[in-house]
This record gives sequence, structure tokens and C-alpha cells, in this order.
Amino acid sequence: MSARPISLGIMLHGAGGHMNSWKHPAGPADASVNLDFYVSQARKAEEAGIAFAFVADGLYINEKSIPHFLNRFEPLTILSALAVATRKIGMAGTVSTSYSDPFTVARQFASLDLISGGRAGWNVVTTPLEGTALNYSRPHPEHALRYEIADEYLAVTQGLWDSWDDDAVIRDRQTGQFFDPAKLHALNHKGRFFEVAGPLNAPRSKQGQPVIFQAGSSDAGIVLAGKYADAVFTHSPSLEETRDFTTRVKDAAVAHGRSRDDVKIYPGIGPVVAETREAAEAKYHAIRALLTLDEALAYLGRYFDHHDFSQYDPDAPFPDLGEIGRNSFRSTTDRIKAEAREKGLTLREVALATATPRPTFIGTGAEVAEKMIGWIDAGASDGFILGFPVAAEGLEDFIRLVIPELEARGRYSRDLPGETLRDHLGLPFKVSRHAGPQAQARAARG
Amino acid sequence: MSARPISLGIMLHGAGGHMNSWKHPAGPADASVNLDFYVSQARKAEEAGIAFAFVADGLYINEKSIPHFLNRFEPLTILSALAVATRKIGMAGTVSTSYSDPFTVARQFASLDLISGGRAGWNVVTTPLEGTALNYSRPHPEHALRYEIADEYLAVTQGLWDSWDDDAVIRDRQTGQFFDPAKLHALNHKGRFFEVAGPLNAPRSKQGQPVIFQAGSSDAGIVLAGKYADAVFTHSPSLEETRDFTTRVKDAAVAHGRSRDDVKIYPGIGPVVAETREAAEAKYHAIRALLTLDEALAYLGRYFDHHDFSQYDPDAPFPDLGEIGRNSFRSTTDRIKAEAREKGLTLREVALATATPRPTFIGTGAEVAEKMIGWIDAGASDGFILGFPVAAEGLEDFIRLVIPELEARGRYSRDLPGETLRDHLGLPFKVSRHAGPQAQARAARG
Repeated sequence: MSARPISLGIMLHGAGGHMNSWKHPAGPADASVNLDFYVSQARKAEEAGIAFAFVADGLYINEKSIPHFLNRFEPLTILSALAVATRKIGMAGTVSTSYSDPFTVARQFASLDLISGGRAGWNVVTTPLEGTALNYSRPHPEHALRYEIADEYLAVTQGLWDSWDDDAVIRDRQTGQFFDPAKLHALNHKGRFFEVAGPLNAPRSKQGQPVIFQAGSSDAGIVLAGKYADAVFTHSPSLEETRDFTTRVKDAAVAHGRSRDDVKIYPGIGPVVAETREAAEAKYHAIRALLTLDEALAYLGRYFDHHDFSQYDPDAPFPDLGEIGRNSFRSTTDRIKAEAREKGLTLREVALATATPRPTFIGTGAEVAEKMIGWIDAGASDGFILGFPVAAEGLEDFIRLVIPELEARGRYSRDLPGETLRDHLGLPFKVSRHAGPQAQARAARG
Repeated sequence: MSARPISLGIMLHGAGGHMNSWKHPAGPADASVNLDFYVSQARKAEEAGIAFAFVADGLYINEKSIPHFLNRFEPLTILSALAVATRKIGMAGTVSTSYSDPFTVARQFASLDLISGGRAGWNVVTTPLEGTALNYSRPHPEHALRYEIADEYLAVTQGLWDSWDDDAVIRDRQTGQFFDPAKLHALNHKGRFFEVAGPLNAPRSKQGQPVIFQAGSSDAGIVLAGKYADAVFTHSPSLEETRDFTTRVKDAAVAHGRSRDDVKIYPGIGPVVAETREAAEAKYHAIRALLTLDEALAYLGRYFDHHDFSQYDPDAPFPDLGEIGRNSFRSTTDRIKAEAREKGLTLREVALATATPRPTFIGTGAEVAEKMIGWIDAGASDGFILGFPVAAEGLEDFIRLVIPELEARGRYSRDLPGETLRDHLGLPFKVSRHAGPQAQARAARG
């Protein structure tokens, strides 16, 4: 157990996770719509043995949105492009179950899985942002309803993905038989939210089905993850909190008849690394300096339904917001409110810390490597998703300073295991629900 | 006018347009899900100066569907992949306005347009196939309603595409200004079918907006094309019929205040070419021999809501079908019925001719080239979309035998004009609706 290798993903989010990362000189200012930059990041990550690229998404902006959300690639299209520009790295992206059709999403991911040779992953989100409804001609479903929809949605898409048995398509030019009708399965789903007959017009892929990522941290999100997720993208406030979360998700998997190893936990971390601890601090302060107070207040407002925080004295205690933020990014806003109350923070302190939080992983390459290993060995997570505050600088520093330290400790290999994303994540080929009991049992044994 | 160059597109539809093309030895049997084959076809076409690749689509299959529809790539994902594997050729694909959300489709095409550097095109269809409703949890809209939805849908997507003026995003690292709010336009559309606030989270592209293709041949389709389409994909029963159609579409464009040159007509043709006329006929018969009568009857049934034609005597006159086929592929089924009646054809003759129609363009390279030039010079069309019955053989023959003949007559260049799909099609940059009157007038002058 203690010698488990560290598994990594990387967020591709334009110039970086910091709201003003576009101002940082390390990368191009137009990174979020710059194909060459995406290709270059994906290839560097692949060469470094990072298991998958991860593209987040949002379906609503307004003029207060943070810059790299204003103009950006759509996940399925950019991942399909990157699949051709790379050979091994996984391709995971966000699509919302609240604002899409399961038949379309099932086949777009199936198509990505074919194009990439079995490297596709779908990050299932239910869309917290209420404004999204304004772009989709329908009301925004409330939190519990969104998760009920997502549950049925996943049952439908996974059902569609098993439409064709692995050996259903024969293509015998001599006999003229294209497929075996006994190995084609219509879904005929009729549920509370969806009626989908199927079959899907795409075969299963080299990994069986796309990997399911899940990113909601609420109780309902944990239940959904326990039932369906192969991997979970979560926060990384501290080892203890992440370990508690990890335990809860794995408990939820067991409660759904799965094993603790069937769902891998990947907290997002944004390491800031340099040759010395002081140089790393200097890098963090250079990032923090990209931001004005007004911008930090606007960023904070984004989590609270674009609440206008400029109306308050920034140096007074963090205001009592009552119900504001209860429907949107709820786990984040609850944490912000609780922390402000517990530590007696001012609005300025909350805003600056929210927009440029001090990284949990900061220091020299050896320090960051040790800390990562510590999290893994403590059972806090199975790996990490690297979401650097400044993407260009962060990835280069990480490859140069952290990966050699992980390698030196025997905890990292630049050679990805296998060919598919499931291989990379240590997950078995996804056996079809229509496969015989022998195939199911073989898969269960791993 | 008589020296206009011939503009070409190419259908990428797996092994080819013929229902049993997968059996033909010229290409791989799994072509419809074979990325390498798609890349190879797109690159050969690009090298030959073909202006765009065109990927059709369908959202419903059952076990009677023709083989290359059973398993295939989804258009937006495969086009995004091909965009990275090519440099100049345009990337056009089908998405239905009856079974999708305009915000999602607007941004997926905007993203493809960015990824490809301004080479994206959207083939707008309303989906004739009623079975599609079975996969989308909703009733199938009838013909007229589908076109009313499409009209509003296009107004919304084109409005979203103009969310950001071409110079709206500034990214000034010194001043910290990311964009000019005066140059960002919310849409605030509230119509009969859609409410979409916008703005879109993607900028305009190198060609302004993706090219709009339209493929419906009914009266409602012609009106829609006249109003919105940059290019129209149509049938090619004969020079006269296609010229009549072309005249009607261009009249419809004029009726909407546009010029006849604003909408380009591309009939689909499936040339069969060889060194001699006899060798071309032999190629046609080899293709026809890929098919049994049972398969031809099933193929025919597809146009008539999967009507079971095996119940009739194949050598009796084509049966009276009454209302069958009135809601689905209507212009095709009306034509089949009329032709059977006029020529007194048997069911067998109709089925075989429908499944493997004798190509309008068949013969030597010189013959096919002359005929294509004849169509262009007669004003029947602005170009052609090559949909070879057998893709691998067809493209190779066409490049080897027809293109040199077109070049020898000074009617073809392998150097595509400009960089964007609009450049290739002889269409101007699409000026934003929010641009000043000067820019609009400049564009109108071309």
C-alpha cells in the first residue's frame, strides 16, 4: 500500500486557475482560446506521464465572469482535437446532466472514446449556476432534483453505451453479415425524466465505456459518485478533510455493492514550486499581485450568485449573507461563511484569500513531493488533478522540480500503464451489462 | 462567368454512400468508425484542393438501418479531430435543430471554428426521421413546425455568435483590462420556442461566423435557405431539376434582401470514373453487386418509415402506398412514387435503383469533367459535394482521372483561395450585426 505510485491529471483551463492568470507573463494572454497552447500543454503533460487532461466547463457568463470563462473552448470539441494531437494521455471533460440530452451526450463521448482509442472521460456535473437557465429556455432545477435527474441520466447513458456487445459487429464480407442481431440491445428506457429507446449508433470502445468522473461534494453528489463514478474530482482544503471526503465516497461505493478501489479520488491541487521555499513564496506573491481588491470582490460574488460585495466596508467583518449562496456552489459558500465566522475575517481577507488562496502545496520540489506522498499514504486520495494558478509556469516547474523528486522516491513513472484511460487509472476494462456471468466475475476479480 | 472554377466538397461517410460499401475491397470494412481512414480521406481531399469535408448524421437507428449508420462518429467530435489533422480544408457537419439546444450547438460550432482557424460549417437539418423522437423523450415535431423551430433556432445561434465584437477582447496586461464591455452584446432573445439570454462564452472566429449549410429541399427548406444559408446541399437528379432548384433558392435569397451570390448550391454527386466508359460501367456493376434484393427492399423501406416492402411481389408494379412516407424524407419519397408511376416500374426495379442508382456522373475522367463544367456553366450549381458510392475507390479515381481534366480546362486549382471556409467558398467574412454601417457596406460590396 505505501508504495503506490502517484497518479496525476491536469486541468486545462487556459492561462490557469487564477482569475487573472492571463496577465502573467509566463503564457499567452489568449490561452483559453489558443489551440497551440492547449496542444503544447497536453503534449508536455503526456510526456511527463500525466494520466489525463481535464477540461471544466460553464454554460453561463455575464460581464462579471472571470476572464478565462468569458471566451473558451467547449470541452467535447477541444478534447477531440487534443485526442489527435496526443497518443496516450486521457481526455476528460465536463458536461452537465441538467442542460443536455442523454442520447447526444452518450454518443459524443462514445465518439471521443473511439477517436482517442479508449481515452475518454466524462466529468458529470449537475450545474450549480442558476443563470444557466437563462440560456436554455427552461427553469433551473433545484439541488435535489438535479441529482435525481443526474441519476436517471447516468443510467440511460451507461445503458446506451452497452448497446452493442463487444463482438456484435462482424463485418463478414463473404457472408454479407454486418452484425449479429442477438448482440444488439435496445434500451427501451422509460423513466421519470427520460424516455430513450436506443440503441446507440456507436460501438463500445477499447476501454468498454468512457470513464465517469463526478465533481459534486454535497451529500447527494457523494451518493451519485458512490453509485456511478470511476473517479471523483474534489477540493483539497486539508489532508484531514479530503481524507474524510474520500472515506465517505468509498463508503458510498461499498453501499452500492462496489469495492473501495472502484472509485478513485482526485483532489484538485494548485502547486506553486520553486528551487527554494522563499522563491516559491515569491511566486505565490507575484500571482496574488495580479489582482486588485475590486476584482477579488467580484470573484467572491461569483460564488454567491453575483452578489455585489462592493457595497460593504472591505475592512469590516465578513457580512452576514443569510440565505445568499444557498442554491449555488453551496459546499463552497458554506465553507467560506464558516471560515470567516470562525476566524473573524474581514471581507478584504476573505475576498483576497478566495481569489488567490495560499496553495496547500507550496515549497520546493522535495517538499511538495513529500506532501503529495503523505496524502496518498494517509489514504486521503488516489491521486491529484493539477490545476496550476498559472498554467504555463506551473506545469513547467512541476515537471522540472516535483516529478524527479517523486521518481527518486520510487513513487512515479513517466510510462503510463496500458493504453486506455481506465488502464492509466488502474481501473479494469468496463464489462458490458449484457456480458455473461463469467466475464462479469473475471472483471470483478480485476 | 463561363470560366468560374469548380468548387468541391467531399462527404465523409465511412466506407461510402452505397449501403453495402463496407463489403467493397477498396477500403476498410470498419471505415465508419476508423479514425485513420477519416484522416487519410480528409488529407487526400485537402491535398487535391477540395474545399470542405462534410459529415452527415442521424439520431436514430434500429436493426434495419443501413450498416454505415449503425456505428459511426458523431459530427462535431470527428470534425474537431480532423481539424487538427489538416490545415486548410473546411469542416462541415450536420446537427439537427429539432433535437438540440441552440446555446450548446452555437458554442460547439464556435469552438470548432476556433480550433480549425475559421474552417467550420454547420449543416442545419430539421430531422425528418420520426423515430428520433424515441431517443429524445419528446414528440417529433411535424414538418411545418420543424421549420418554424429551425428559423428561430438560427436567429438565436447567429445572434449568439455575434456576442463579442471582433475587437471586444483587449487583454491589456498593463491596464488589466480584459475586454471592452461596450463591445459585448447579450442576446436577450425571447421567442416562441426559445429564451436565450447570452452572451456566448466564445469569440467570433477568423471567418466571423461558421458557414451555414442547409439541406432541406421542401418549400419550407428553400425559404429557410434563402433567409439564412451560405450554402445548400441538394440532390442531383438532372441538370434541369437541379437548375430549377438552384433558381428557386437564389430567388428566395433575393426575396430576403440578399444577393444570388450569397448562397452557393452544392448538389451531391457520386461519380464513378475509370480509364474507359466500359471500365466505369464495370465499376458501377461491381458496386451494384454488393447488394441482395432483400437488402434493397429494406433500404427502400428506410425512406418510408421502415415500411415492410418484403410483403409485396417484387415483380409486380410498385405498390400504392397512400400516405406512407408523407412525413419523412418527403421530397425523396414523392420523387420515388412519381417516377415509379410515370415509368411503370416494378418494386424490384425501384428498390435496386434506389439502393444503387446509376450515377448521373459516370464515365471517363474527361466525360465527368465536361459534365461537371456543363452544370456549372448552365447555372445549375456553384459546385458539387462528392459522395462516392465507395469512398476509398471513388476519391482516388476522382483525383487521378477527373481533377487533371478539370485543371487542363482551366477550371480547377488545387490551391484553395484564402484560409477560411468562407474564403474557399467565395463568401466574404461574415460581418457582425453589431458592426458599424461602414463595415456592413464594405462587406455588401464584397
